[in-house]
Amino acid sequence: MGDCSFRDLFRARPLDGVLNLAGYDPTWTPAAPSKSDAKDAVEGALAERLFDAHELLYASKERSVLLVLQGLDCSGKNGTIKHVVISMNPAGVRTASFKVPSEAEREQHFLQRYRERLPEPGQLAVFDRSHYEDVIVPLVHTDLDEDGIRHRIDEINDFERELHDRGTEMVKCLLHISFDEQRDRFLRRLRRDDKRWKFSEADVDTRRQWNEFQASYGMVAGMTSPDHAPWYVIPADHKWYRNWAIANLLIEVLDAMGLAYPQPELDIERLRARLESPN
Amino acid sequence: MGDCSFRDLFRARPLDGVLNLAGYDPTWTPAAPSKSDAKDAVEGALAERLFDAHELLYASKERSVLLVLQGLDCSGKNGTIKHVVISMNPAGVRTASFKVPSEAEREQHFLQRYRERLPEPGQLAVFDRSHYEDVIVPLVHTDLDEDGIRHRIDEINDFERELHDRGTEMVKCLLHISFDEQRDRFLRRLRRDDKRWKFSEADVDTRRQWNEFQASYGMVAGMTSPDHAPWYVIPADHKWYRNWAIANLLIEVLDAMGLAYPQPELDIERLRARLESPN
Repeated sequence: MGDCSFRDLFRARPLDGVLNLAGYDPTWTPAAPSKSDAKDAVEGALAERLFDAHELLYASKERSVLLVLQGLDCSGKNGTIKHVVISMNPAGVRTASFKVPSEAEREQHFLQRYRERLPEPGQLAVFDRSHYEDVIVPLVHTDLDEDGIRHRIDEINDFERELHDRGTEMVKCLLHISFDEQRDRFLRRLRRDDKRWKFSEADVDTRRQWNEFQASYGMVAGMTSPDHAPWYVIPADHKWYRNWAIANLLIEVLDAMGLAYPQPELDIERLRARLESPN
Repeated sequence: MGDCSFRDLFRARPLDGVLNLAGYDPTWTPAAPSKSDAKDAVEGALAERLFDAHELLYASKERSVLLVLQGLDCSGKNGTIKHVVISMNPAGVRTASFKVPSEAEREQHFLQRYRERLPEPGQLAVFDRSHYEDVIVPLVHTDLDEDGIRHRIDEINDFERELHDRGTEMVKCLLHISFDEQRDRFLRRLRRDDKRWKFSEADVDTRRQWNEFQASYGMVAGMTSPDHAPWYVIPADHKWYRNWAIANLLIEVLDAMGLAYPQPELDIERLRARLESPN
């Protein structure tokens, strides 16, 4: 890869505050080796590099990372967790999956349930869906008017600024799949006894609003992509590429944090003598 | 392995309510293949079987598993997480590491902080140290009198009965290492720049009470090993064996839960037709 920056490669580039997703090819595979080499790397060399980079985060117990996975049904949020997040030390990983808010959650501030699942110092937290659902969905369903949407967007930007200021690095991935690929993945879910449990009829209803969701994602991402918390558009039609890309992106972000193992002041000679004495 | 039951193999067998740890060899490697085959299995075939068995738990979203890791410093609690727990889908795993309780934690019931970290339905939670510290340590430090200890033991047994009744399978592993092996691991930590952050002088003080801790572990485990939540004594001097043993034990426990993928009632033909219509 040499001088390829994955952050540059995938960074969302809104025009006039709007991200036009139609301009991003979900089948794109830039900078990639062959499919089989990419798969080997995700299970091998990249897994090890990711483990090591994350172990530094975990050891330093100061900063944290929030990986936000957004995308339509079947875009690969869970696949990313199962194939990429799995490489890291579970002691320093926290995952949270956000469904439609419960009655009780609806009565509190919309950001509250996300605040409760943030990474602690030293952790990488994964949000499988996130606070972005609270604007993307109402925008499609027109549950909120323009002022309501804009107000939530402002609150999200404030929230992420706050996270940034306290040392949380955000990696916001928009998993970008095509209409046809989604259909194929739904059909596969229906066919397989061990996948059918993930299927819900509501997912097919959502699919009928494909264009509205693309527009909503683009509008929201366009307004929430500052330098300290940019969106990355991950081409996700090829699972192997999505995994390879996100593993590389995470490694790059962790490396750029410049972390080091804490070196406690220890009187090593004295400790060694104490340890070697027969109790 | 055929008809080897890992639950039988490692099950703690207290005599008159006391577990005599001196009767358990930390270097024992029963039923194991060669070291290199065991290591390959933990990263390969066993990792896959564990992933699959846990995925059923995650999909069924009803029952849960609580893996309790107890053992002295350097006994391999974190190593077990890094090498065995890492095999499972992070979306269905939750880890919690318990240190000396904070001021605020000390003011609430001792079980409270553990209650807050229990597995949700479908999850496997890992406790790196656990509610057992709240009797093992006071027993050594004589912070609680006999009645105080016995009262906490009763509360722990009630707590675990409650967990069992609501469908949480407990896997309580006592990672059993020798005095000499602990010394070697401490010395290795001191030597390595990337391990020294785990070292604390207090650990050496604890080591000086080795026999008291062995007795305390044995007393506590002896009183808290009912059929529905038994202790397993894992020989832990060999890291490769510890990992291999715990992976097998977890697979066996998960398999014995008899879980199946939920099969939602879906009108598959109609859904297929809806999916194949061009929006």
